[in-house]
Amino acid sequence: MKETQISFLRNIVGNKNICTNKEELLVYEYDATLLKGAPEVIVFPENTEQVSNILAFAYQEGIPVNTRGAGTNLSGGSIPDQGGIALVMTKMNKVLETDFKNGVVVVEPGVINQELQDYLIPHGYYYPPDPASMKACTIGGNIGECSGGPRCLKYGVTRDYVLGMEMVLGTGEVVVIGSKQQMNPDPLDLVKLMVGSEGTLGVFTKLFLKIKKIPEAKKTMLCTFNSVKDASKTVANIISRGIVPTTLEMMDNLLINCAEDFTGLGLDRNADALLLIEVDGFKEELDGQVQVIKEVCEKNYVKEFKIAQSAQEVDQLWTARRTVIGAVARKRPSYSLQDVTVPRNKLPDIVEAIVNISQKYNLPIGVLAHAGDGNLHPLVLFDERNKEEVKKVHEAEFNICKIALSLGGTLSGEHGIGLLKKPYLKQEFSPEVLKLKKQIMLAFDPKNILNPDKILEVGK
Amino acid sequence: MKETQISFLRNIVGNKNICTNKEELLVYEYDATLLKGAPEVIVFPENTEQVSNILAFAYQEGIPVNTRGAGTNLSGGSIPDQGGIALVMTKMNKVLETDFKNGVVVVEPGVINQELQDYLIPHGYYYPPDPASMKACTIGGNIGECSGGPRCLKYGVTRDYVLGMEMVLGTGEVVVIGSKQQMNPDPLDLVKLMVGSEGTLGVFTKLFLKIKKIPEAKKTMLCTFNSVKDASKTVANIISRGIVPTTLEMMDNLLINCAEDFTGLGLDRNADALLLIEVDGFKEELDGQVQVIKEVCEKNYVKEFKIAQSAQEVDQLWTARRTVIGAVARKRPSYSLQDVTVPRNKLPDIVEAIVNISQKYNLPIGVLAHAGDGNLHPLVLFDERNKEEVKKVHEAEFNICKIALSLGGTLSGEHGIGLLKKPYLKQEFSPEVLKLKKQIMLAFDPKNILNPDKILEVGK
Repeated sequence: MKETQISFLRNIVGNKNICTNKEELLVYEYDATLLKGAPEVIVFPENTEQVSNILAFAYQEGIPVNTRGAGTNLSGGSIPDQGGIALVMTKMNKVLETDFKNGVVVVEPGVINQELQDYLIPHGYYYPPDPASMKACTIGGNIGECSGGPRCLKYGVTRDYVLGMEMVLGTGEVVVIGSKQQMNPDPLDLVKLMVGSEGTLGVFTKLFLKIKKIPEAKKTMLCTFNSVKDASKTVANIISRGIVPTTLEMMDNLLINCAEDFTGLGLDRNADALLLIEVDGFKEELDGQVQVIKEVCEKNYVKEFKIAQSAQEVDQLWTARRTVIGAVARKRPSYSLQDVTVPRNKLPDIVEAIVNISQKYNLPIGVLAHAGDGNLHPLVLFDERNKEEVKKVHEAEFNICKIALSLGGTLSGEHGIGLLKKPYLKQEFSPEVLKLKKQIMLAFDPKNILNPDKILEVGK
Repeated sequence: MKETQISFLRNIVGNKNICTNKEELLVYEYDATLLKGAPEVIVFPENTEQVSNILAFAYQEGIPVNTRGAGTNLSGGSIPDQGGIALVMTKMNKVLETDFKNGVVVVEPGVINQELQDYLIPHGYYYPPDPASMKACTIGGNIGECSGGPRCLKYGVTRDYVLGMEMVLGTGEVVVIGSKQQMNPDPLDLVKLMVGSEGTLGVFTKLFLKIKKIPEAKKTMLCTFNSVKDASKTVANIISRGIVPTTLEMMDNLLINCAEDFTGLGLDRNADALLLIEVDGFKEELDGQVQVIKEVCEKNYVKEFKIAQSAQEVDQLWTARRTVIGAVARKRPSYSLQDVTVPRNKLPDIVEAIVNISQKYNLPIGVLAHAGDGNLHPLVLFDERNKEEVKKVHEAEFNICKIALSLGGTLSGEHGIGLLKKPYLKQEFSPEVLKLKKQIMLAFDPKNILNPDKILEVGK
């Protein structure tokens, strides 16, 4: 980018909201993958008008724009690999409106997921999507990726909570799509199209979200098994008994041990699988559900079935679950977190396949799963400095993706396509479908400046 | 259309699946609105290949194609007002696959909603969207309109139950979008875009739907009030107490009387409003909810609070609700059913405005509402033969739409835009948003042959 272009941007956002020095640019080279790519300038807009002016200028000049929040992205979507502008939305971080009567909140995209929860909880409300990174990730990023999380089994993913938005197109035009209405039948639904568009269609500036009343009560259960198969069957059987728990989280032996190393909670290091099950709702309905879940666990040879006895115990269990990804760092210096889905009853098949892949490539692979949704996060452990091993990691992951698709699953559950899964996209979608997606991208972003060549390459 | 074109279509579908005689064409002139428009030929495809060949031919020749199921449409969407082909999907009416383990069913678009329910119920499953016309309307039509229904308050609308589909584009190309997976994060979500696209983007040939276990128990309550305001406050208060009933249906005095005329159930003819409330779930949780609902009703001066005592009584109440639209025919020869939404707490405001409009135009207007969703169906009664009165009906309805938008609502809740609401669309969407929608339409249907000029006019 030319100095005159930087100056133009400086005039839009002011001196304090722009960075060009190398050290700072380096910080925005990363997301939570191993990929890298530095921007040429970092801009922190403070309002819609600034975003609109920035995009109108980028459109005129043909400058790539990579929009990002906290950069916790797991598929390379927030890597500015084509240089240009890193548009960091973290200064647009206000809750603008709350309407508890109608269950709606309006926020700016830079609000952190946990901050929104903290804001809502004292009023008796919450925002259901709860990605593992919720303490850091922004609502704008969650919408860009259509983030899930443990409790999405019962309550649905981000897509189910976005009613409408104000956004800026790739031309700088500001549009409002959808509305603040709960029943919101946008004919030719642009709102749902935006959720999971990974920054390729526009930049969100205001988000109209659906919120829910906090359930009256919950019960948290920890169940260990001698085999992943038994745990998987338990998952399927609970749901076929008509119970939809809030969460049905699974960890395999490798991850149980990582979690135990990190937390020292006394998790059973010999168990082959662990399920963290939570049910919520009215007080009266929970005991019956816990009873059925216990029966199902026993039928599937549960090793230990334990109900958390205090709020503190519940917190500890969830801390173990949420921190396990970081906890693997003690085993090997690098990890790569995959994200695929399979039909719920194919869980044992894919876990078996992952064990085989782990042996074939001689790589430890832990399995973490939102098991109720059939959404798996195989966690491949390796050493980034060993280039041979990195090559094996890519091969192993490509094989996991192919197996997920062959079992009737999808390439991604909640982490998006970004750069990481782009090479596999042709395995899931036909050329005609990819052509439709490209045409939609060009309708919103005619010069292909918005996160260009993420998800797919518009020019190809 | 030329005779050679008809012959070409005859070769595709065979003699028994094509009609061109005037009497039969007349039958396909209508939907459930007062609008009319005759097709030039009626074609009943039996499989995807035939649909693809028909559309490829229509694309080549530039022939308009109006796809329809049972024609229960309430916004003119299934009126072939530009002639051409009426593509009637009722012969593609098979349930193709069921996967109860993963809660998925695959159906052809001509399956009738009630037939799908009848198929699922013996297995302990159901498909939640339940439009009032469910005994006649097809799943393909439901998806085209993103149909709702009473129980969508708790369970969501059609959009929430479509996981993927096979469909034919406006070029004749067959594509598969989405998947049979519950957790289904299509990057740049084409599936949700199809739901509510009113036949303008493609023709569905196979639909992958999410199904649910039938809840263990339910309780149905009938509550009458001395004012619509009291009933509306009851609705808002129930939800703010953390209860989401399966249904929260409201009728005003005019409709209570129509329902009573028709059913003779003993409904209170003097009540100003009636709420039909249902809760479902586990047995243990229902009594507590009923108790809270009763308390809320009492605080809002309920006239009578009654719990249905038998399955037969429940059926009777629902029959009264589902048949009330037809029942108004006894009052005046014609009716027009509107469909708007407002934020839930604005229900009293819009009902008051409707009373004023009714007086101003001297037209009886009944109010039926999925009150929990803020989705109203004002029912304007008149005589179609009186042209002056028809003009007044249009003015009255336009005013209702304008008021809904001014209260923060939407032009349509579940009946779509079609032809009927097209003139109002510019009130809800900006030119930039309409342009995006048009570009998407052209990506799927480059020659604008699929239900042309429904929702909006691509050429303008």
